[in-house]
Amino acid sequence: MSPVNPDLARERKNATFNPEDLSIILYGKENLELRRKIFKEISEDPNFAKAKMFPTMSRDEVYEEAVRIFGALQRKMKEHGYVKGCFDTYALQHYYYKNAAFIGTYPFSVHTDMYAPTIKGQGTDEQIAEFLPKAETYQHIGTYAQTELGHGTFIRGLETTATYDKNTEEFVIHSPTITSIKYWPGGLGKTSNYAVVMAQLIIDGKNYGLHPFMCQLRDLKTHQPLAGIELGDINRKFGYEVVDNGYLRFFHYRIPRTNMLMRNAKVSKDGEFSRQAIPQVTYLTMSYVRMGIVQEVATLLAQAATIATRYSAVRRQTANSQGIEPQILDYQTQQMKVIPAICTSYAFFFNGFEVRKIYDSVMAAVEKGDVSRLPEMHSLTSGLKAYCSDVSCDLVEICRRSCGGHGYSNASGITRIYQLLVPCCTFEGENTVLYLQCARSLMKFLGKAQKGEELPSSLQFLGHLPDVPPELMSAVKFDMSTLMTAFQLNALRSVLHVASELQTAQKKVNYETAWNNNLQGLVEAAKMYSVYLVAKFFVSALSASQWESRAKAVLTQVCEFYLVNNILDHSGTFLQNDVLNPSQASLLRTRRIELLAELRPNAVALVDAFDYPDRLLNSCLGRYDGNVYEALYEYAKSSSLNQHQVHPSFHKYVKPMRETLKSQL
Amino acid sequence: MSPVNPDLARERKNATFNPEDLSIILYGKENLELRRKIFKEISEDPNFAKAKMFPTMSRDEVYEEAVRIFGALQRKMKEHGYVKGCFDTYALQHYYYKNAAFIGTYPFSVHTDMYAPTIKGQGTDEQIAEFLPKAETYQHIGTYAQTELGHGTFIRGLETTATYDKNTEEFVIHSPTITSIKYWPGGLGKTSNYAVVMAQLIIDGKNYGLHPFMCQLRDLKTHQPLAGIELGDINRKFGYEVVDNGYLRFFHYRIPRTNMLMRNAKVSKDGEFSRQAIPQVTYLTMSYVRMGIVQEVATLLAQAATIATRYSAVRRQTANSQGIEPQILDYQTQQMKVIPAICTSYAFFFNGFEVRKIYDSVMAAVEKGDVSRLPEMHSLTSGLKAYCSDVSCDLVEICRRSCGGHGYSNASGITRIYQLLVPCCTFEGENTVLYLQCARSLMKFLGKAQKGEELPSSLQFLGHLPDVPPELMSAVKFDMSTLMTAFQLNALRSVLHVASELQTAQKKVNYETAWNNNLQGLVEAAKMYSVYLVAKFFVSALSASQWESRAKAVLTQVCEFYLVNNILDHSGTFLQNDVLNPSQASLLRTRRIELLAELRPNAVALVDAFDYPDRLLNSCLGRYDGNVYEALYEYAKSSSLNQHQVHPSFHKYVKPMRETLKSQL
Repeated sequence: MSPVNPDLARERKNATFNPEDLSIILYGKENLELRRKIFKEISEDPNFAKAKMFPTMSRDEVYEEAVRIFGALQRKMKEHGYVKGCFDTYALQHYYYKNAAFIGTYPFSVHTDMYAPTIKGQGTDEQIAEFLPKAETYQHIGTYAQTELGHGTFIRGLETTATYDKNTEEFVIHSPTITSIKYWPGGLGKTSNYAVVMAQLIIDGKNYGLHPFMCQLRDLKTHQPLAGIELGDINRKFGYEVVDNGYLRFFHYRIPRTNMLMRNAKVSKDGEFSRQAIPQVTYLTMSYVRMGIVQEVATLLAQAATIATRYSAVRRQTANSQGIEPQILDYQTQQMKVIPAICTSYAFFFNGFEVRKIYDSVMAAVEKGDVSRLPEMHSLTSGLKAYCSDVSCDLVEICRRSCGGHGYSNASGITRIYQLLVPCCTFEGENTVLYLQCARSLMKFLGKAQKGEELPSSLQFLGHLPDVPPELMSAVKFDMSTLMTAFQLNALRSVLHVASELQTAQKKVNYETAWNNNLQGLVEAAKMYSVYLVAKFFVSALSASQWESRAKAVLTQVCEFYLVNNILDHSGTFLQNDVLNPSQASLLRTRRIELLAELRPNAVALVDAFDYPDRLLNSCLGRYDGNVYEALYEYAKSSSLNQHQVHPSFHKYVKPMRETLKSQL
Repeated sequence: MSPVNPDLARERKNATFNPEDLSIILYGKENLELRRKIFKEISEDPNFAKAKMFPTMSRDEVYEEAVRIFGALQRKMKEHGYVKGCFDTYALQHYYYKNAAFIGTYPFSVHTDMYAPTIKGQGTDEQIAEFLPKAETYQHIGTYAQTELGHGTFIRGLETTATYDKNTEEFVIHSPTITSIKYWPGGLGKTSNYAVVMAQLIIDGKNYGLHPFMCQLRDLKTHQPLAGIELGDINRKFGYEVVDNGYLRFFHYRIPRTNMLMRNAKVSKDGEFSRQAIPQVTYLTMSYVRMGIVQEVATLLAQAATIATRYSAVRRQTANSQGIEPQILDYQTQQMKVIPAICTSYAFFFNGFEVRKIYDSVMAAVEKGDVSRLPEMHSLTSGLKAYCSDVSCDLVEICRRSCGGHGYSNASGITRIYQLLVPCCTFEGENTVLYLQCARSLMKFLGKAQKGEELPSSLQFLGHLPDVPPELMSAVKFDMSTLMTAFQLNALRSVLHVASELQTAQKKVNYETAWNNNLQGLVEAAKMYSVYLVAKFFVSALSASQWESRAKAVLTQVCEFYLVNNILDHSGTFLQNDVLNPSQASLLRTRRIELLAELRPNAVALVDAFDYPDRLLNSCLGRYDGNVYEALYEYAKSSSLNQHQVHPSFHKYVKPMRETLKSQL
C-alpha cells in the first residue's frame, strides 16, 4: 500500500491540538497504553489474521471462525495467567483482548457477560463454588434463557414452569405452549451446554413468581442435547451472524432442587419457599446492564464517526468553478452529517463516565444497606439507555449514508456497526417501554418535589419554579449557562405539561386509562429529561476539568455544538414549550453554521483521538492511511463469487434458458 | 397450520369499510385481478417453491437460486408468449411475474431495466435492430457501467476513456487509474456478457464528453472474460445479496466504431464528431428513473406497514389491572409507530399516481417538440425521489423496531425490505445532492415568479404573496384547506428565507461561495417544497375522487392524519416560519391523538387493502392468518447451523480449548 493520503496528512498537520492529549482525557494514560499493547500483540499473532475477512464469509464459516478465534484467545490469555477470576479481576484486559481479536461479539459473550455474573450474583456461596470455576475454564459453557417466543419485555408474562416435586426433590422444567419456547438467548443454539433458565416457580399448585434455574442442556463430553430438551439456532438475523441465538423447548425436564439459584429466594427439601433479598436490588442489575449499553453505544458511534470523517476528507466530488473537486468534508451538508456524530460521541463518552460515577456511589451506599438512591439510578439508566441507543442508531446510519454508494458495501465497516448497534434499541428493555418506565419515575419524583421533599441531584430540576429566567427570554447570544437553562426549562415544562394532562384526564377516567391516553406525552417528557441529562453531564465534565488547554478549547467547541444542535433538533418542542422564540431559534441556526466552520479543521484530529486501530474499524473507507480505493479493489477481489471465473450457475441455468429462448430470435 | 388468529379475525370483522373497495382504488379492478392470477399461478408451480428460503441461504446459494428462478420464469413467460418486446409491451405482466417468483431484485434486473432501455433510447435504428432481439432472448446479457470506484453522482468526473483510432476504426476503452475502475453495476460481476460503458470520448486528443459504448465482456459460448478485461463481483453488501454488483477494469480494450450508441451523438469513420439531440432530453430519462423510485418506495413502505400492523394486532403485552395483556396495537405509542407508516404509504401511492400523470403530459409535449416543462419535471422528481426515499427508510425502520426483538430476525421480512429500500437514498442521485438540484431549480423559478412570469402548477405557490391568511392565524380548528394553506405558506417561506440569505451573502462573496455557505438552508427549502407537494397531491386526489363512500371516508381520515402528522414532524420549521403559533401546534397534537384513536379500528383493513400476498411479504410476523409463533418456530428449525446436532466446531475448537484450561480447575 501507498503512504498516507496527502489530504489526510494535511488535515492532521493543520489541527489546532494534539489528539494524544484528547485520547488521554478519554481513556487515561495507563489504559491507553495497555490497549495499544494488546492490539499490537494480537495483530502480530497469525492465529488472529483471518478475522478481517468476516464480512465475506458465510454464516457457518463466520460461526466456526468465531469459535476458533475465541479458543485461541483463551489460550493466549492463559499464557498471561488471566483464567482464574477471568470474569472480573482482569476485566479490562479481557475487554481489550476480545476487541482486538475479533469484531463485535462472540458466541461466548452471554457466557462471560450474563451466565457467569448471574451465578455470582444469584447463587449461594456453595453454588458459586460449584459452578463458577467450571464456567471460568469453559467446562460449562452457559447462556441466560429468559426471553420466550411470545414474551419479551413484560417478564411477568413468561410461561416456562419449574414445578417442585417433593418426592424426588427435583424441579420439573416445562414449556407448556409454543409461545413459551425460549427464543433469542445468545450462544444457546450450538455453543452452550448449560443455561440459567428463568421460570415460574410452582409449589403445590401455587405460583411463587420467576426464579433462575441451572439447567444442563448438552452432554459435557459428546455435546449431544440431553433427553427432554429440544434446541437449536434460530436462523439468520439482521446482524449478529456470529452468535448462535437459540431456541429451547423443555418436555418435563428434571433438575435437582439444588440447581435453583438460591441467594435471593430458597426452596427447602420439603417445598417451603422463603425470600432473602429485597426485590429492589434487582433494579441494580438492570441499571448496570443499561449503563453498559450507554457506554457501548458511545464507542460504536465513535467508530462510525471515525470512518465517515476520514473518508469525507479523502473523497473529492463535484468540480467547482476552478475545476477542482473539493474534499466533501468542505461541504456544509457533509459537515452536518459527520460533525453531529463526532460531537455526540464525545457527549456520550462523558455521559458514560458521569453515569458510572453515580452508579458507583449508589452501589457503595447499597453495600452499606442504603437503597434510597435506587429509584434515581433506575430513572437515569432507563431514559439514557433508550435515548443514547436511539440517537446513536440515527447518527450511525447518517454516517453510513454520508459515505455515498460505498457506505452500502460491507467494506465500509459501518453496515456491521449499525447491525451491532441497532438491537440495543430493543434488548434489555425495549426503548419505548423504557421511556415510559422513566416517565413513571419522573411523575413520582415530581410528586415528591411538589410536596417539598429533597430530590437527588439529577432530578433537582423538577423542584424549580417554571418561570422563564429573564436572561433567557431576552438572549440574543447564548453562552453555555444560558443554553443549559434552556435545556433544564424545556425538560421541566415537558414533564409539567404531561403531568397536568394526566391530572385533567383523571377527573374523567381512572389512572390507568389516563396514563394510556397520554403515552406520547410521557415518552416525550422522558426524552427531554434524557436530552437534558446528557447536556448537563457534558457541561459539568467540562467545567470540572483541568485538561491540556488546546484540547480543552476544542472540547468546549464540541460541547457548544452539541448543545446548540440538540436544541435545534428538538426545536419544535423548545418553541412549543415557550423556552425559545422563533428569532432566537434563528440565531441558534446561524451559530450552528458558524460552529461547523470552526470545527471543520479539527474534524480528523477529533476522530483520531478516539484511537481506534484499523484492525478494529475493519473498514476500507476509514483506514488511518486513507488509501481507500486500493482497499476497495482488494475487498472486491476476495468475494466468494470470484472463486470461479465462470460461475457454475451459468452452465446449469443460463445456458438452458438461452437455448429455450433462442428460437424466438 | 391453525385457522386465522382470532384477534386478526375480529379486527377484520370490525372494520368500517371493505378493503376490496380500497384495493380497487389503488390498483384498478383489472390489474388487481391480473396480479392475483399471476401470484396464484406462480405459487402453484413447484419450480418457485424454494424462494421463501432465501433469508437462510449463503451468498453463493442465493445468487445461484436467483439465476435458476429467473430461468424458470423466462420459460414460463415464453409459454405465455411474453418474449418478444418483453421490455415494454407486457411490462405489467413482467412486473407481476418477477414480484411473484422472487423477492426484491434479480441478477438480471439491470439487464431488463437499464441495459435494454439504453439501447432503445440511445441506439440508432440499426443498432436497436442488431442488439435488442439478442437482449430480449438473453443471448446478450447486459449491464449499465457508469459509476466508478472514485466517481459517483458527479458524472463529469468519470475517468474511463474511449479513444478513437482512425486507422482501425475502433475505440480503445481504457481504465487509466484505480479510481477509474467501474464499480457497482448490478449483474456485472458474474452474470453479464455485455455492458453499456459510459466513457469520455477522445478524438485526436480532444475530449467530447461522456458517451455510451457497447462492450462485450465475456465469450458468448464459454462465458470466459475476454482478453483486455478484468472483472468480478464486488463482494458482500448491506443487502442485495442476490445481485452480483461488479467491478470492471479495461486494459486498452478495442471495440468497433459502430459500437458507440449513436442516436444522440455520432463519430464518423474519419473521426468527425456531431451531436444530434438537445441535451435537456436526457433530463427525461433521469426523471423517469426517479419517478420509478418514488413509486417503488411506496410499495416497500406499504409492505413493512402491513407486517408491522398485523403483528401489532396479534402480539399481546403487559398485563393491565384486569390481568389481561392488551394487543400492542391498543397502545398509543404503538399506534404512533404503525399508523404514520400506513398513512404515508397511502400518501406516497397517490403521490406516485399524480407524478405519473404529470410525467405523461410532459412526455406528450416533448414528443410534439415542446421541452418547456422539463425543468418542472426535473425539480419535482429530484425533490420527491430524495424525500420519499428518506421518509420511507425512516418509517420502515420504525416498523421493524415496532416488532420488538423479532423485528431483528430475518423472519420478520422487514430487514430485507429495509436493505432493499435504503440504497434508494444513494443511487440514481444521492439524496442531499438531489435536494440541492431541486433547490437550484426552485431559485430559478422564484426568479421567474418575481419577474411576473407564469409558473407550472406544481410551482405556482412561489408566485403568491407571503401574507399569512387571517383564517390561518386565528384557526382554532383545522380543516383540510387550512392545513394545505399552512403547507403552502411553509414551503414558500422556507424558499424565500434562503433566497434572501443568498442575496445578502452575495453582497460580500461570489455566488458560488454564497451558495456553499447556505447549503443547509437550501436543503431545508427543497424538503419543505417536497412535503408540500405530497400533501397537495394527496388532497387533490381525494377531492377529485368519486370513490365508494365508506372507503373514501377512511381515506379522508388517512389524509388528515398525514397532514397533521407532517406539520408536527416539522413543527420546528412551521413555528420558525411563523406559519403556526405554539398554541395551534398544541391543538394539532391533540388532534393527532384523536385521529390515532379514529384510525385504530381500521388499521388492519387498511393494510389488507394493499393486497400483498404472504408469498411476497415472506414474513413470519406479517402472515395474513396471524399464526406468527408457529411460523417463527419453523423458521428457527430450518437454520443451516441446525444441520448437525453437534456443530463441527465443537470437536475442532471447543474441546481442545477446554482441555487446555482444565488444568486451572
